[in-house]
Amino acid sequence: MTDTSRAAVTRELARFVAGSCWSSIPTAISHEAKRALLNWAGCALGGCRDETINTALLALTEFAGPPQATVLGRSERMDILNAAALNALSSNILDFDDTHLPTVIHPTVPVAAAATALAEHSRVRGAQFLHAFILGVEVECRIGNAISPEHYEAGWHITATCGIFGAAAACAKLLDLDATKTAWTFGIAASQAAGTTGAHGTMTKSWNMANAARNGLMAALLAAKGFTSTEAALEGERGFTQVFARRRDLDEIVRGLGRTWELGRNAYKPYPCGIVAHPAIDGCLALRDDPRARPDAVERIELRVHPLVPMLMGNPAPVTGLEAKLSVHHCAAAAIVYGRVGVREFTDACVNDPAVVAVRARTVLVEDLAMPKETAGVTVHLSDGSTLHNHVAQATGSVDRPMSDAELARKFRLLAEWGWPDCDTRGFIELAWSLDELTDAGAFPRAAAPP
Amino acid sequence: MTDTSRAAVTRELARFVAGSCWSSIPTAISHEAKRALLNWAGCALGGCRDETINTALLALTEFAGPPQATVLGRSERMDILNAAALNALSSNILDFDDTHLPTVIHPTVPVAAAATALAEHSRVRGAQFLHAFILGVEVECRIGNAISPEHYEAGWHITATCGIFGAAAACAKLLDLDATKTAWTFGIAASQAAGTTGAHGTMTKSWNMANAARNGLMAALLAAKGFTSTEAALEGERGFTQVFARRRDLDEIVRGLGRTWELGRNAYKPYPCGIVAHPAIDGCLALRDDPRARPDAVERIELRVHPLVPMLMGNPAPVTGLEAKLSVHHCAAAAIVYGRVGVREFTDACVNDPAVVAVRARTVLVEDLAMPKETAGVTVHLSDGSTLHNHVAQATGSVDRPMSDAELARKFRLLAEWGWPDCDTRGFIELAWSLDELTDAGAFPRAAAPP
Repeated sequence: MTDTSRAAVTRELARFVAGSCWSSIPTAISHEAKRALLNWAGCALGGCRDETINTALLALTEFAGPPQATVLGRSERMDILNAAALNALSSNILDFDDTHLPTVIHPTVPVAAAATALAEHSRVRGAQFLHAFILGVEVECRIGNAISPEHYEAGWHITATCGIFGAAAACAKLLDLDATKTAWTFGIAASQAAGTTGAHGTMTKSWNMANAARNGLMAALLAAKGFTSTEAALEGERGFTQVFARRRDLDEIVRGLGRTWELGRNAYKPYPCGIVAHPAIDGCLALRDDPRARPDAVERIELRVHPLVPMLMGNPAPVTGLEAKLSVHHCAAAAIVYGRVGVREFTDACVNDPAVVAVRARTVLVEDLAMPKETAGVTVHLSDGSTLHNHVAQATGSVDRPMSDAELARKFRLLAEWGWPDCDTRGFIELAWSLDELTDAGAFPRAAAPP
Repeated sequence: MTDTSRAAVTRELARFVAGSCWSSIPTAISHEAKRALLNWAGCALGGCRDETINTALLALTEFAGPPQATVLGRSERMDILNAAALNALSSNILDFDDTHLPTVIHPTVPVAAAATALAEHSRVRGAQFLHAFILGVEVECRIGNAISPEHYEAGWHITATCGIFGAAAACAKLLDLDATKTAWTFGIAASQAAGTTGAHGTMTKSWNMANAARNGLMAALLAAKGFTSTEAALEGERGFTQVFARRRDLDEIVRGLGRTWELGRNAYKPYPCGIVAHPAIDGCLALRDDPRARPDAVERIELRVHPLVPMLMGNPAPVTGLEAKLSVHHCAAAAIVYGRVGVREFTDACVNDPAVVAVRARTVLVEDLAMPKETAGVTVHLSDGSTLHNHVAQATGSVDRPMSDAELARKFRLLAEWGWPDCDTRGFIELAWSLDELTDAGAFPRAAAPP
């Protein structure tokens, strides 16, 4: 066991959160926060009619508190703890949420879900909400950095186990807690940190997120009223990093606090499937713009890819939507037939659409170790004997080719149309870009649900 | 890493819970369940006015649901999830709850808190409630057995991490879930299993219990409505025993199911302090019955004890109630002065009572490696030169000298008088002994709170 011991890390982190001023947040980071929140709201709207949400609502409504906060995309309003849980659940269901690349944490889900519910109830200003969100992501990802990759490798669902600290930090900031109570918030959060990857593939996977959001918020609510806890939740002898990881570098939690920002390492997925298929999808979508690439004119699609692609996504003939998420053949066919690869393209109906089945059957993979993972070569052979070719050097959404604001807005529109077609997407997108100017942050979630 | 792999342990456990009949429960075990529940209710009443409960109520009431269930000793009624949490909290605060000796799990707290709230709301019969409680304790302790002692040694608060499965099992039974949904309940519980010993000494210690009770109940409520999960929560590759312990013996979970009962290994504390002091307290209380042992006639109290006693409880001059819990000198003095060692004897007021201070100052320890841990020799030297002596071979509440039903009833009365003096203790005790005959199990919690 390696160990970088460092005293009072929890207190130092708590002081940072309690003392941080909005004016100290770089413009690029506050803009990234808006991007993250727009992407998050889209994911929540996309997932809001999923059976997972319906089932959770059915189970919990009878026991829920007053209608204090919005459940995105739904007419039901819930007490803030349940709203936090449900919005975390819906925004994670589609596996379309963002990724902090160094840790594979999906940072926005637990933090935004908790902070949005509390902000709506507390009637805080947009800037205050944005600030709290940024601090929450910072706390969550720094704790993740300190115990990665061993923590995730041991079976912990890192977005849940670290996400609760992010949710807790954001809510502590929204409640304007001092450093001691913020440290207690971390202590209470540590006592509730939970979630393994053992139930992936079931509804329970996203329930880990619901817990993280709900319990992070609960930690802050308790600490605010004087519920005491340890002030060494992270570094203590039985503290979080000791019990939840066999290796830790506590310095990662506090080094450069306020100078570097983890939101700057956040990435967004353009397609709701495994990231290794994204370069090939980009290539197919680009060729599809060519009028010659009509589906019925396509003889053969050849995808030249890194061997990881067939290994992870090599199913040539998926039958269900879930199976299609593991089929780069399907992704390519959907791109050529529909010109988009979104949530709808992973429904059972789409997977069995004869037009897609036909193109999919004519799609072949060529493994090529010389192709870096982030690249793909797509060649479309047409019935007239000609070929179209596209080489993708960096997929959309990768570190070096981030999704643009316009691409994120388009992603939001498609997701909203899928989950809540009545959404005024133009109005919501405008609201997201002006989050820091809102006098009432609650306008943000309220615009994402029926009045 | 040692590992006894065993397939389908979770399903086997779920089938046992779902298929268990009330008629298969031995009378001795159903009687032990009544003893455990009487002891539990006493602990909850004793703790119900603690600042911890007041603070939690202050923080959570605003967000709570309808008044569906009793908070023991309080006039507030809460939704069942919050009631489960608060009753788990209050019943653990005084460190006076029961102990499953092989694992040091306090088995009743999470299981009873969850089951009581759900039973009251569901209007089940007393026998059904008792049956569900017994199964919950069985599940919780068997899972604990499988990973002890390594799990606790690693910093996990085992009553919380295993208790959530017990709460989940009891609630699954109350909801009459089939084996598949019971397995899902375990899967959802595993995703929420949490709690380290890192915040001991603060309010957060008992919050671990609150989470276990609330979330175990929540797991069953979700599974009941069809919320899916893994059916291999315990043994799966990223299952609970894999992620939460470096050693496991899965056979412990299922061997002898239905033939042996873990409640049979449950013990109750007669005094709310460290168990190593209990033999000495027994000895002092026995001598105090002698009319010559008037406090002002006591020159010196000599306690001959195992060296563990001074090591764990050797503070000769405590100033606060919390410090007094680590002072066998104080325990002896309180026994001689008041003739009892209950919750009141660990208040700051009592610790600083001049009569106690005087006797405490005249109490000395004699370490003796020849004294087994479960024994103590007490000699009281009186001012007339005479001495009184008592040798305790087994403390009250130990395995070989369990507290009698009458002793448990007396403990209940003292705790109720402390926390909720208006309690009809005689009526409540009668109710506890006839729990299996109640047509509405809700009468049990309702009798422990103002109407």
